[in-house]
Amino acid sequence: MATRTQTVAEICAQARSAARGLATLETAVKDAALEAIAAALEARVVEILEANAGDLEDGRAAGLDAALLDRLALDEQRVEQMAVGVRDVLALPDPVGEELDARTLPNGLSLRKVRVPLGVVAIIYEARPNVTVDASALAIKSGNAVVLRGSSTASRSNAVLARVIAEAGDAAGLPEGSVQLLAGGERSELIELARSEGLVDLVIPRGGEALKATLKEHARVPVIYAAAGNCHVYVDASADPDMARRVAFNAKVQRPGVCNSSETLLVHADAAPAILPALLGEFHDAGVELRTDARARALAGSLADEIVDATEEDWATEYLGLTMAVRVVDSLEEAIDHVNRYGTGHSEAIVTEADQAARDFVEGVDAACVYVNASTRFTDGGEFGMGAEMGNSTQKLHARGPIGLRELTTYKYVMHGTGQIRE
Amino acid sequence: MATRTQTVAEICAQARSAARGLATLETAVKDAALEAIAAALEARVVEILEANAGDLEDGRAAGLDAALLDRLALDEQRVEQMAVGVRDVLALPDPVGEELDARTLPNGLSLRKVRVPLGVVAIIYEARPNVTVDASALAIKSGNAVVLRGSSTASRSNAVLARVIAEAGDAAGLPEGSVQLLAGGERSELIELARSEGLVDLVIPRGGEALKATLKEHARVPVIYAAAGNCHVYVDASADPDMARRVAFNAKVQRPGVCNSSETLLVHADAAPAILPALLGEFHDAGVELRTDARARALAGSLADEIVDATEEDWATEYLGLTMAVRVVDSLEEAIDHVNRYGTGHSEAIVTEADQAARDFVEGVDAACVYVNASTRFTDGGEFGMGAEMGNSTQKLHARGPIGLRELTTYKYVMHGTGQIRE
Repeated sequence: MATRTQTVAEICAQARSAARGLATLETAVKDAALEAIAAALEARVVEILEANAGDLEDGRAAGLDAALLDRLALDEQRVEQMAVGVRDVLALPDPVGEELDARTLPNGLSLRKVRVPLGVVAIIYEARPNVTVDASALAIKSGNAVVLRGSSTASRSNAVLARVIAEAGDAAGLPEGSVQLLAGGERSELIELARSEGLVDLVIPRGGEALKATLKEHARVPVIYAAAGNCHVYVDASADPDMARRVAFNAKVQRPGVCNSSETLLVHADAAPAILPALLGEFHDAGVELRTDARARALAGSLADEIVDATEEDWATEYLGLTMAVRVVDSLEEAIDHVNRYGTGHSEAIVTEADQAARDFVEGVDAACVYVNASTRFTDGGEFGMGAEMGNSTQKLHARGPIGLRELTTYKYVMHGTGQIRE
Repeated sequence: MATRTQTVAEICAQARSAARGLATLETAVKDAALEAIAAALEARVVEILEANAGDLEDGRAAGLDAALLDRLALDEQRVEQMAVGVRDVLALPDPVGEELDARTLPNGLSLRKVRVPLGVVAIIYEARPNVTVDASALAIKSGNAVVLRGSSTASRSNAVLARVIAEAGDAAGLPEGSVQLLAGGERSELIELARSEGLVDLVIPRGGEALKATLKEHARVPVIYAAAGNCHVYVDASADPDMARRVAFNAKVQRPGVCNSSETLLVHADAAPAILPALLGEFHDAGVELRTDARARALAGSLADEIVDATEEDWATEYLGLTMAVRVVDSLEEAIDHVNRYGTGHSEAIVTEADQAARDFVEGVDAACVYVNASTRFTDGGEFGMGAEMGNSTQKLHARGPIGLRELTTYKYVMHGTGQIRE
């Protein structure tokens, strides 16, 4: 069993050992384990909710705010969603063994480039207990051992979830130690985890800037960082006004606290008179605080007095809330320059009816996900058909965008010869 | 022109600007530029050799050893090989725009995952001037701007090569600043380069441990490190004795100073009596100093007195010369454990006639390249049909093994919709 209190070194060594077995496990065994885990989550829902109730009680006593408590809270439906998530991952193709290249070299050597698991993946995350389940399912399917390090606010929920997963997985034939929870909330443990060279192959932080700063200072194992999401919607001169308003509104308002929501609206000067007066009113009615340049304010009618002048800092800010910056630009190029200057490479959208403008925006914007005529809110492993996600990368190396099964693999060149030597 | 003395910041800013143009350049334009560069190398061979003669003269005056002078030296044939290398890269498919995935999501959004260049790639390398050409060709074909930082020993050669490349490239329509040489030999410049966040997307060091240590301490941009190559040949119980001797000898002796040469020979106890006596003699005759365990020494006959006892340190050492560690193991598992414990994840070989042993070794060994019945010496971008290589990675993230065109790219999700919003 994997959730006793153990040292970081013990946990990582067990994970490394489990990883060796996991790497060569048949797809059918991994899938059977995932089905067993999904079934166990359903069967043990009462136990899970009891543990969660304890976390919630502690959280309320500690004065956690309503949003955090909501992210922490589980009910029967949310547990059922976890099981569904596991089965979604189960249904995806096994990335391990996928042939990325196969050739015979002139000297007769057969070259195959084959996907293999990374080994041991550690994930560090905050309140949401469903990450415990998503991360475990993705790790198992991709043949990786996983070390989970949740937040102390969710300690009881995570402990029972990790226990349910490990017990069901062990019984279904996963190597012992495949899924392990690092129970302690100590910062020193986090640092030790991130310095476990040779034991941990990748750390994925899902948390705030303080966590990232700690890892940047201390980590010795590879880390995939996700920058904040300073995302934009650009309304091109040729945009359909109704679509533009719908997309811009959705990208900002539908769930403003997440990284793929948009922070700045850019509108081409030719489209602004037809779009901004109504759209600024809609934002205002939805409780959005507006920070705009002078040209946008001039189109705000009676709202103009309530609008704050946007500063350089506003263009660079991820509000993660009901605040939005608005700027009128004179050209597509100006929009692209703005996005590349202030954006964080997460998700960027253009609304346009012009194919050339769409192409130029897609090619010119340097971001993980670029949308034409759709909301930025779709950047998500689940939405992308990846079952779930370990996180969302804004870096360019290894993984960009949602981190799913393939992103948890590396590859190996397998060369078969008949005694070839180099002359 | 790109080889005047400029500040690191100026060079990186020009490279960033060039990268934007390079990213969307047609394949035909890039290929025409590469052909122009190959032709210019041929046409300007006298100028190149003159510069090289100056470097060689300085090198001899500074007392550089023969091996270093040989790596530095150019002649007509080596310059012609550079041109051939450029045309080899030209002939490869353009990685940019390659579709890695394409699906329509249930909500009608079209998802495309498309290869795009990284942007600005910096390479830091030592004596060999051909790296200037190889790196430039790979960068151009993959749509990246490149910042070259060679060693001061090759400063004249690199300056003229970079000038030839930049002039031919500019004339053929590459954005100005696509290929730039960081001329200064100052360590502070190296550090500034490695801290140019937002300007440089990747640094690839090709040099010794001191360079890597400097980067580990100072780099803020992503670096792909290559560990040393502590490579092994394992002779299985079922190995063909002649093939085993041929492969083991080649892997050690053909070019012992390079990272894909082998350092330790592991021999199954059942195969050792038939193989080691003759093979140890061959190594000895070739001038290889042998460091073995007791069982190997017992099979060394009259050589036994000249054999040094291998220590724990020998198993962990990359000799990069005519020294070899030899160990007899009792099983395939013991060989795999030895390789995973002491190896650096570079290139590992098994010689065997047993399919199951080959499979177990390939699956069990954690390395970039695993060979069955072939020498480890083939790990090389050129040998792998990648035209050339920017370096050779032993890390698992992003690139593993030779760094060629694909490894110099990232990807972008391009989503086309009809106004989709998230509910």
